[in-house]
Amino acid sequence: MQKGDEYLKRGIIEFDVGELFEGYLLIKTVDRGVTSGGKPFLTIIFRDQSGEMDAKLWDITKEDEQMYIPESIVHLQGEIRQFRGKSQINIRQIRLTNETDQVRLEDFLEKAPVEIDELKSYLTQTIFEMSNPNIQRIVRQIVKKYQDQLFVFPAATKNHHEYTSGLAHHIVSMLKVAKQLKQLYPEINIDLLYAGIILHDIGKVKELSNPISPSYTLEGKLLGHITIMVDEITATASELGIEGEEVLMLQHMVLSHHGKSEWGSPKPPLIREAELLHMIDLIDAKMNMMNRALKQTKPGEFTPRIFPLENRSFYRPTFEEN
Amino acid sequence: MQKGDEYLKRGIIEFDVGELFEGYLLIKTVDRGVTSGGKPFLTIIFRDQSGEMDAKLWDITKEDEQMYIPESIVHLQGEIRQFRGKSQINIRQIRLTNETDQVRLEDFLEKAPVEIDELKSYLTQTIFEMSNPNIQRIVRQIVKKYQDQLFVFPAATKNHHEYTSGLAHHIVSMLKVAKQLKQLYPEINIDLLYAGIILHDIGKVKELSNPISPSYTLEGKLLGHITIMVDEITATASELGIEGEEVLMLQHMVLSHHGKSEWGSPKPPLIREAELLHMIDLIDAKMNMMNRALKQTKPGEFTPRIFPLENRSFYRPTFEEN
Amino acid sequence: MQKGDEYLKRGIIEFDVGELFEGYLLIKTVDRGVTSGGKPFLTIIFRDQSGEMDAKLWDITKEDEQMYIPESIVHLQGEIRQFRGKSQINIRQIRLTNETDQVRLEDFLEKAPVEIDELKSYLTQTIFEMSNPNIQRIVRQIVKKYQDQLFVFPAATKNHHEYTSGLAHHIVSMLKVAKQLKQLYPEINIDLLYAGIILHDIGKVKELSNPISPSYTLEGKLLGHITIMVDEITATASELGIEGEEVLMLQHMVLSHHGKSEWGSPKPPLIREAELLHMIDLIDAKMNMMNRALKQTKPGEFTPRIFPLENRSFYRPTFEEN
Amino acid sequence: MQKGDEYLKRGIIEFDVGELFEGYLLIKTVDRGVTSGGKPFLTIIFRDQSGEMDAKLWDITKEDEQMYIPESIVHLQGEIRQFRGKSQINIRQIRLTNETDQVRLEDFLEKAPVEIDELKSYLTQTIFEMSNPNIQRIVRQIVKKYQDQLFVFPAATKNHHEYTSGLAHHIVSMLKVAKQLKQLYPEINIDLLYAGIILHDIGKVKELSNPISPSYTLEGKLLGHITIMVDEITATASELGIEGEEVLMLQHMVLSHHGKSEWGSPKPPLIREAELLHMIDLIDAKMNMMNRALKQTKPGEFTPRIFPLENRSFYRPTFEEN
Amino acid sequence: MQKGDEYLKRGIIEFDVGELFEGYLLIKTVDRGVTSGGKPFLTIIFRDQSGEMDAKLWDITKEDEQMYIPESIVHLQGEIRQFRGKSQINIRQIRLTNETDQVRLEDFLEKAPVEIDELKSYLTQTIFEMSNPNIQRIVRQIVKKYQDQLFVFPAATKNHHEYTSGLAHHIVSMLKVAKQLKQLYPEINIDLLYAGIILHDIGKVKELSNPISPSYTLEGKLLGHITIMVDEITATASELGIEGEEVLMLQHMVLSHHGKSEWGSPKPPLIREAELLHMIDLIDAKMNMMNRALKQTKPGEFTPRIFPLENRSFYRPTFEEN
Amino acid sequence: MQKGDEYLKRGIIEFDVGELFEGYLLIKTVDRGVTSGGKPFLTIIFRDQSGEMDAKLWDITKEDEQMYIPESIVHLQGEIRQFRGKSQINIRQIRLTNETDQVRLEDFLEKAPVEIDELKSYLTQTIFEMSNPNIQRIVRQIVKKYQDQLFVFPAATKNHHEYTSGLAHHIVSMLKVAKQLKQLYPEINIDLLYAGIILHDIGKVKELSNPISPSYTLEGKLLGHITIMVDEITATASELGIEGEEVLMLQHMVLSHHGKSEWGSPKPPLIREAELLHMIDLIDAKMNMMNRALKQTKPGEFTPRIFPLENRSFYRPTFEEN
Repeated sequence: MQKGDEYLKRGIIEFDVGELFEGYLLIKTVDRGVTSGGKPFLTIIFRDQSGEMDAKLWDITKEDEQMYIPESIVHLQGEIRQFRGKSQINIRQIRLTNETDQVRLEDFLEKAPVEIDELKSYLTQTIFEMSNPNIQRIVRQIVKKYQDQLFVFPAATKNHHEYTSGLAHHIVSMLKVAKQLKQLYPEINIDLLYAGIILHDIGKVKELSNPISPSYTLEGKLLGHITIMVDEITATASELGIEGEEVLMLQHMVLSHHGKSEWGSPKPPLIREAELLHMIDLIDAKMNMMNRALKQTKPGEFTPRIFPLENRSFYRPTFEEN
Repeated sequence: MQKGDEYLKRGIIEFDVGELFEGYLLIKTVDRGVTSGGKPFLTIIFRDQSGEMDAKLWDITKEDEQMYIPESIVHLQGEIRQFRGKSQINIRQIRLTNETDQVRLEDFLEKAPVEIDELKSYLTQTIFEMSNPNIQRIVRQIVKKYQDQLFVFPAATKNHHEYTSGLAHHIVSMLKVAKQLKQLYPEINIDLLYAGIILHDIGKVKELSNPISPSYTLEGKLLGHITIMVDEITATASELGIEGEEVLMLQHMVLSHHGKSEWGSPKPPLIREAELLHMIDLIDAKMNMMNRALKQTKPGEFTPRIFPLENRSFYRPTFEEN
Repeated sequence: MQKGDEYLKRGIIEFDVGELFEGYLLIKTVDRGVTSGGKPFLTIIFRDQSGEMDAKLWDITKEDEQMYIPESIVHLQGEIRQFRGKSQINIRQIRLTNETDQVRLEDFLEKAPVEIDELKSYLTQTIFEMSNPNIQRIVRQIVKKYQDQLFVFPAATKNHHEYTSGLAHHIVSMLKVAKQLKQLYPEINIDLLYAGIILHDIGKVKELSNPISPSYTLEGKLLGHITIMVDEITATASELGIEGEEVLMLQHMVLSHHGKSEWGSPKPPLIREAELLHMIDLIDAKMNMMNRALKQTKPGEFTPRIFPLENRSFYRPTFEEN
Repeated sequence: MQKGDEYLKRGIIEFDVGELFEGYLLIKTVDRGVTSGGKPFLTIIFRDQSGEMDAKLWDITKEDEQMYIPESIVHLQGEIRQFRGKSQINIRQIRLTNETDQVRLEDFLEKAPVEIDELKSYLTQTIFEMSNPNIQRIVRQIVKKYQDQLFVFPAATKNHHEYTSGLAHHIVSMLKVAKQLKQLYPEINIDLLYAGIILHDIGKVKELSNPISPSYTLEGKLLGHITIMVDEITATASELGIEGEEVLMLQHMVLSHHGKSEWGSPKPPLIREAELLHMIDLIDAKMNMMNRALKQTKPGEFTPRIFPLENRSFYRPTFEEN
Repeated sequence: MQKGDEYLKRGIIEFDVGELFEGYLLIKTVDRGVTSGGKPFLTIIFRDQSGEMDAKLWDITKEDEQMYIPESIVHLQGEIRQFRGKSQINIRQIRLTNETDQVRLEDFLEKAPVEIDELKSYLTQTIFEMSNPNIQRIVRQIVKKYQDQLFVFPAATKNHHEYTSGLAHHIVSMLKVAKQLKQLYPEINIDLLYAGIILHDIGKVKELSNPISPSYTLEGKLLGHITIMVDEITATASELGIEGEEVLMLQHMVLSHHGKSEWGSPKPPLIREAELLHMIDLIDAKMNMMNRALKQTKPGEFTPRIFPLENRSFYRPTFEEN
Repeated sequence: MQKGDEYLKRGIIEFDVGELFEGYLLIKTVDRGVTSGGKPFLTIIFRDQSGEMDAKLWDITKEDEQMYIPESIVHLQGEIRQFRGKSQINIRQIRLTNETDQVRLEDFLEKAPVEIDELKSYLTQTIFEMSNPNIQRIVRQIVKKYQDQLFVFPAATKNHHEYTSGLAHHIVSMLKVAKQLKQLYPEINIDLLYAGIILHDIGKVKELSNPISPSYTLEGKLLGHITIMVDEITATASELGIEGEEVLMLQHMVLSHHGKSEWGSPKPPLIREAELLHMIDLIDAKMNMMNRALKQTKPGEFTPRIFPLENRSFYRPTFEEN
């Protein structure tokens, strides 16, 4: 039997207190501390696709500090014990993996429930369906420019679609909603709406530092993904020699997609498709959060509180089949 | 040529200052005034399907006052003139219609762009598709009880779907959105969502006085359509001998559909389908308002301000075909 | 000397660090934990009428876990010690009580400063004084239906009147205020006001799980005590064959008693007595909170912060006699 | 028959369009205008105890302008006619009154439904009942200082108790409520509460210009009645040689009686009696507004909107006797 | 004596009812109306540097309509009369001016109290004083690009600096404040602050349609001057081949200068100079509004309400010399 | 070498974990605890001019408890170790200082970066420059009355200017800003503005208990520094026999300097100089907070969050010289 298949069988968060864990884990974050006796130690957060768990690594050497860093994968043996009400790994053995271990970073990250190729081809197809050439060319150019990041970045650091390919997953889900609404409300300018959906959050690939352990970049903090993308549209249009109201409309779609100034949109939506973009964004984000929380909740119980949904807990009716 | 076909050809609001209007109009409201010379007169608002226009009827008799009342239809001849920046009819001749005129009240009212029969059959079909018998029976019973009003009432006195059959039109549009979203988010409990959509606003048939010139009833003012319907669900379930969590879920769907306590929901949505009901309600109401305003706006121009959409004006791009 | 008299002499919170406690205590909550060595233990909150104190029970068996559960009474011996700034009982001996101990649950609970019988007879008398038969019959019927719970439930899980019979105590205090205000403002419709006061919070007996360790029921979370009682009034009126505006008025009184939509009232008070009900509710709740906090505060000092009173501390003037 | 008795028989607002009015009226305000023909005229608002009515006085002379000024009483003959939906007096004859008319200013002003003497003696009695000498002396001194204004000023320029002696009427009503609440909540420090009630609004005699046609003084606009009275307490205590916490408590009572900083209290109530003062103030003001509006409303109808009560209309139940 | 000197001697708003005006006026707006008799007429708002006045032009021809349009200057003779409480010109004679009249548009517009040349040289000097070459070059380039508009545009359509050269006047006033604050707080990075002040509102030359009768452009409505300028900085830096943090800092300064998201800044100020820019902007705008209102107010009186200053009226103390 | 020079060389917060500290420290606060073994210990916060550090003193005697109290200075030897992520002193030796140690309290307190004498003379000079004698006399009298406290008190217990002489430092900085603004906006009444700046916060010397470890006094909690100073102005004017509008203006300046009622000003600024006082207060407080935070931040990094600046972190550009 092949290693690569085996080591993912049982996730770290499924181990109970008292059990012995042995397997591969990804290091998410590392913090250095010093004991009251003056000795340095590391507090490591490990993760695999099932979730995260803390551990302490005592009596460390300089080499340990240089070796065990974020995004490296280790093989680890340890007992699960309880500390202040949370499970923690009591490390017995640890070593850095190498090629012979045949482990890949992506196997330790939560990812979108859809394959990248599928996301890519849906997006390509959608751009192909556009009929306004100005809109189509601008969107195609920007997607091409950021294609490397677009399909691996999360849609956010937390809250919703906060996993590998989350950004593209969010875009594609929204495009599907848009396609359905177009049938019900034929007045919708579908080119504008598609374009707005595709572009609205791409600025996140510059707002966030990287897809695996994303934090806010300086540009992200001082400008934000909205302004970054509005700028990008200007530059792209100028590059392609495109003039005309479409450029302004696309900028407005992105600029207003948070809906209100107090939510970070300097202008509220002032065209129909911008209002709709804002609503579809809300629906897809909310469904993503509610579905993932309810999936882990038994019928007859409430989910944990979901902060961005006004800190509500949602109930799962007993008459639903699990 | 038949009269009934002819008299609707050109709407009252399409007449320009200086033109002579001759045709049938519905009286919407009547106010009695007295001139500085002490003589009584009537200020009448007339309407047809195109919209409304004011007129003054001078030198009136007691009989005039008793004859020209709201919801009566008149045949009228008069000049369109301008008064304080608005068009006004300068009445030359006026008489009450009778049977021989072959005019019907409903020909003067704005109505849903879909036929009542179509709305009815869609609703019936949707109820038929429900699989949870408790939910299905409660919904069917309530729809049956209010079927006379349900298909003629507006969804509101103003703002959105404020026309004949507006309530049913709103319900059916929302059901269609729900049906599409179910395909994209299969986790949705479609019975709950359908039921919530159908029931959420039916309380309006008790909140509002009548479908033609609706005002708020005492019950509407002191309880509101939400509480009225929550009550109705209790009564219906009890009548049908239905117990079980479905009753509570349906009540909660209705109770929370305004989304927040400051918008009149004593509880926020605490089940997924309730949150979704709130979102679909918003989308359909907003699309209805934006589409109707934009239809009357030329490309390159802004709509008038739409009060319930935070008083925004919406722009219609120039590159849209008219 | 009889045990039953003795064991309540000195409350648990009056014991100082270092002292030895021996006596009876009620278990309020129990949480299971596991030590870093992997051994299970219980964190128990005990209470008597004086208040609450924590304890740890180490080295527990399966039997211990099944035996020491909320609402059971134990006999306990232990030292008071300090842990993270709070007193805690270091348990030496513990055993479950049995019949021979002659201890009663109610002796360990805080209760209203008025006897249940007194509350009952005041309420009965008040209903008797009503002159509108419709109002009187509805109120009498609902009080009768819930009489078992009405006189033992607290008015809330925390904040004000959060003790045995707190609900009835709150109602009776408010009735007394109403009676006085009627003398000063003779325009008040005293039947409506009495009825509103009696009914406004009775929904809490369904909103809360039980009178001793109350938590929110599913119905409480999804509908809330206001909607529950509005429903109850409809049902009761229908049962008694009562029609007429009184039913609507009573529903509105209950519906609006939180005063504003953002405080959970779907409608604001729209009749005088509803506004007054809201004001009297506020006064009695505030007086209850302030009086209880100030009673434990010395002249010249401030009370602890009282969260529902906008987190204020209240000062007790030095010139007040203690 | 004596004139003075007769002329008040029928209030000006009870005259219908077309009727002839002849009698005495008080001039409330006068505005000078010029016709399109360049001729000056006066727009006068007249009032008697029943209310107010507009009139135009055409073709005026310089003498007219000097003669017909606010607070003068005229004898007037004119027709009631309608102008822009409101009744207006068409003046036929007008003359200034003199001594022989035997009319008094106070007969044209709305006033408290209680006699000044009664208000005075209630206030005196209340001060007499105080047991804390420091509080008693300060209150007595301030009441004495402002006794001339205190019993004629309104409590406000509009909204509640906005009539002659309204301030004293408000104080006495509140004292009565306080007296009743003391019986129900014996913990109340009644001296503090009485003192707070008596002093809280006396600053209005400096905030407002005069009792008959009150406007805000410069001191009123820049400091407000709260600060004016806090200052007065300091000065009075210093004058009387009183030191001690009572002074600070009284200042705080006045300072915090609007309840919240956004309502003009730089500090929220931080002693029990201050909180209670705020609540009693609210109740008495609200009862005054609701009662006066409902008195003029028939059973089964709503009052006009009352702005300071969040612009609500209040319903008068049909089962109330008129 | 030369005409050009004479015709500005006495402003139109200084003429009293009954007087005869003869002179030059600028047409600000024109509206066409139709009398009840069906005849067209024009409602014209005229202006000169003293302010504005309405007039009606009756019995107009097609030629009149084409001739009397906004921004044209006329010679006019008419009486001042009063209409609904406002002065209005009753036109006797009117003719369009031509070259021989020697009147210039700018003589009829309110303008900054400082000469354009002075503003220009102050701005040039300030840019010259900058020491960071990246910042200096970007600012110089943008100022150069917009120099034609920058020195004639107002800073806003209303509220503050809403006059010819108002934008440059506002910038220069703010620069002077900055220069003084630098002396008191030497930590300030003066290059950043100068640059932020100069650039922050230049986007208004694209947000507003023109300097004389400014309205919002489509770009202004859908993007706003903040986003327009952030874009411009990107483009300019790219054009000049400038990279480095200065570009991001300048963008952030402009982006955050409204201070809060609810005031239209997608990001709050996150560098010291951005916070200071916001504060200086506030001070200069407020001083401009208060000073202009107080200049027209006598000591001992209040200004009219100033809407953007929270609708306050400001008092001018009596002890100030006029 | 003299001790007094030496012991301040290296601040306590500059010592790293593992190092040995020996020197003088001031006790800021002391808390008594009891170990789980029942033994008392002290948690002491020490401070010097560099900042604060915690320590535990174990095995204490009654004498220790009486000796080591706030505001006493000790000589201490101990190791710096880490506890829960913070540095802590592990005390080896400790003794109270005496005269021979030649240490002074003020050497351990943070203080304004300007000498008291300089602050005093600037203030004196500014008062001397005033031209309105009424304003000048009142200001001079109040400054004289509080001169002992005015030059040692902080401007606040935390946030800004929270150090010895912080109040005077704040006043003088603001006066300097005022002096510059007067040059740019000559309309400013500089006497009023100077007076407002000097008086606005002096009430803090009564609001706060003492300059070294300030807490809120009862007067401070129940009245606040604004009301305290408004009162003081009344008393001072009366003492000096000054009447006239200046008194009212000064009271209003102080009363409104927090700008809005929700920030504690019962009236908003209603004179120009009051508005300006509010703005200058904001600028100086913000600059003080930002400058102090940025001074400790390296270029390219963000400051810690600053709570009173809406919890923002500020960035220090990389192109700034350190």
